Amino acid sequence: MNVLDTIGSVPGYRVSGVHAGLKKNRALDFALITSDRPCVMACVFTTNRVKAAPVLWNMERFERNPDGIRALAINTVSANACTGEQGMFNARRMAEMVAEQTETLPHQVLVMSTGVIGQPLPMDKIASGAQLAARSLGDHWHDAAVAIMTTDTKPKLASVRVESRHGAYTIAGIAKGSGMIAPNMATMLTALVTDVLLSPQVAQTALTVAANHSFNRIVVDGDTSTNDMAVLLANGASGIELTTEEDIAEFQRALLALSIELAQKVVRDGEGVTKFITLRVQSAADDACAVKIARAIATSTLVKTAFFGQDANWGRIIAAAGRAGVPFDADRARLWFAIGNQPQNPGLLLFENGQPTDYDEGDAALIMEASDVTVTLECNLGAGITTVWTCDLSHDYVTINGDYRT
Amino acid sequence: MNVLDTIGSVPGYRVSGVHAGLKKNRALDFALITSDRPCVMACVFTTNRVKAAPVLWNMERFERNPDGIRALAINTVSANACTGEQGMFNARRMAEMVAEQTETLPHQVLVMSTGVIGQPLPMDKIASGAQLAARSLGDHWHDAAVAIMTTDTKPKLASVRVESRHGAYTIAGIAKGSGMIAPNMATMLTALVTDVLLSPQVAQTALTVAANHSFNRIVVDGDTSTNDMAVLLANGASGIELTTEEDIAEFQRALLALSIELAQKVVRDGEGVTKFITLRVQSAADDACAVKIARAIATSTLVKTAFFGQDANWGRIIAAAGRAGVPFDADRARLWFAIGNQPQNPGLLLFENGQPTDYDEGDAALIMEASDVTVTLECNLGAGITTVWTCDLSHDYVTINGDYRT
Repeated sequence: MNVLDTIGSVPGYRVSGVHAGLKKNRALDFALITSDRPCVMACVFTTNRVKAAPVLWNMERFERNPDGIRALAINTVSANACTGEQGMFNARRMAEMVAEQTETLPHQVLVMSTGVIGQPLPMDKIASGAQLAARSLGDHWHDAAVAIMTTDTKPKLASVRVESRHGAYTIAGIAKGSGMIAPNMATMLTALVTDVLLSPQVAQTALTVAANHSFNRIVVDGDTSTNDMAVLLANGASGIELTTEEDIAEFQRALLALSIELAQKVVRDGEGVTKFITLRVQSAADDACAVKIARAIATSTLVKTAFFGQDANWGRIIAAAGRAGVPFDADRARLWFAIGNQPQNPGLLLFENGQPTDYDEGDAALIMEASDVTVTLECNLGAGITTVWTCDLSHDYVTINGDYRT
Repeated sequence: MNVLDTIGSVPGYRVSGVHAGLKKNRALDFALITSDRPCVMACVFTTNRVKAAPVLWNMERFERNPDGIRALAINTVSANACTGEQGMFNARRMAEMVAEQTETLPHQVLVMSTGVIGQPLPMDKIASGAQLAARSLGDHWHDAAVAIMTTDTKPKLASVRVESRHGAYTIAGIAKGSGMIAPNMATMLTALVTDVLLSPQVAQTALTVAANHSFNRIVVDGDTSTNDMAVLLANGASGIELTTEEDIAEFQRALLALSIELAQKVVRDGEGVTKFITLRVQSAADDACAVKIARAIATSTLVKTAFFGQDANWGRIIAAAGRAGVPFDADRARLWFAIGNQPQNPGLLLFENGQPTDYDEGDAALIMEASDVTVTLECNLGAGITTVWTCDLSHDYVTINGDYRT
């Protein structure tokens, strides 16, 4: 089961990415994913109490979609968040425009928006985006992935082909990330599609599990967006229906592998990122405690700037763990750094018995120069475990976010 | 009751700041505060579960000091945190060295350390610091405030003279801050002294209340240090004993004013700070909710970098409030920006009814150019209220913390 960085054809789906006039310089800014038959839909939404209009529209579709989902449209530049009643009206209009162009019904259309908060959607450009995108439909997954980028520097797409005992099927997805990335439900925009047939319940469980161990385990800057959302569409075009426990488990594994791949791409392309950090917290009091410790470390600006400075400043990691609000005992903890994101062994032991080991600073410096670093923190308090993927905090992050809106 | 930026003489206390050889270039790095008679001690300690050796030493003194406190010594450069048993031994040795030089007993000596985590205290330099500092005692409050600076760029000292009905007395304090500043108990090192006589209970209540509304309401970067601590010493040298409710209330007001002054100085001199932000959260569900919302906003790197970029990006503030994990309804909220840190009115209304007002971007830009900005967020959900002081996140913060240890 290899996860690929590309998407070929996914039976039943046609997609496009076009320039609707939202971005400058004719850059792609409007993506459309359609299915030739109704899809089962699974979804996870932002936990932010301030939810953007497109999120609210999709939550309604999630509750009630008697005819299944046929299309998903995504625009960039304006997030259509904090836009009041006009925002809700515009989200609905966007769905209507797409429905008109794709000969479906508005309630079969999902919409996603990303960009600046508080700016009204320019509906004339959305209209031309819907029209152009509908005319350009094909296997244009790369264009679609490019069209949903904001401060992302690379398109994020991935696919996996599962050779099941019933035949082959595909799961594919595109994602965007960059800023406002924190581990709290569907953190960013992600559109996943598959050509198997799933019940809504199975699809939802699979997506929730996959999101909890992928998108919800990444931290760029600790901010959870108003627009975050991951959706999984299943159209059954492969003719394969997954019903047995074994078949569903196989699908779950493939979906998780795909989601982790996309989530890691989001971190690697985080705003101003120079370093990809795999943070493993082990033997915490329980899993929830492990996650709290990992998040405290991953959101610490002191830890992140130390990684940017290639400084093996383990003290900031221990201090962040200590303020996570859950049991942590420095005297029982051990901390390792290693090169890579899947090292065979935990690497260089820097800290144990409440104090630094007599590790060689040269060895530590060598690890810190790597673009991929794994940090392993053993708490020795219980069976709690988690892995979080995060990144450093660089000058470019400050530049990007100091200048983003203007 | 004017809070001054200077400290003259505080009856019964003699202080000094000397060069013990910890910092380079003969910079002051060791401070000593002594009292000619035993002091009542009040203290608030870091809530970080990883506590530095000097914090643990002082916690013991806090539990048991039958003879009162006579001296407080503070060193910079090494934090004596995560230093194991040797660290505890060194903290005790530091107290013993100071006791020897000041002719007191070790258990009458408090010690504070600040600097890099995990480096052993260089005890030969501590010894010479204790000796030099004891020889240099006088009204050298400015030297002491300079000696406790790490990445601080300015010494932080303040005093207030209270003309009580029993006569005049003084409260004075020095503080250091800069990095690892977050609102969670005594956030930084602060030494406060007074010449009134207080019971330990009254002193502790007064300090706890003052810290909760000053040091615990500032955010530079969201990290709570392993060494944070604020101490209040009361030696009674003025001959004034505060026993009535009215007298104690007067003392409480003065101590709070002094603490707020010092806390604000810490924020203004935070690492790389270009902007001082007074964040008022009003009508939240309750006070605890107000604090959670304020902290979510104040620790958001997206909000902080927007302030650095002088961008009136109110959307990031609303989004941060939405992810605070407490009730928040964007449709009921209102948001204002104003110039200054004690504006007469809330200023420019940017957001209400779930969307931006038709405010003038030029007016907003003018506010964002100011070095002092007040943000007022009205939730319209209840009676919860708080004020937090925070700052922006600049390139200099990244530079300072990327390079600090090396």
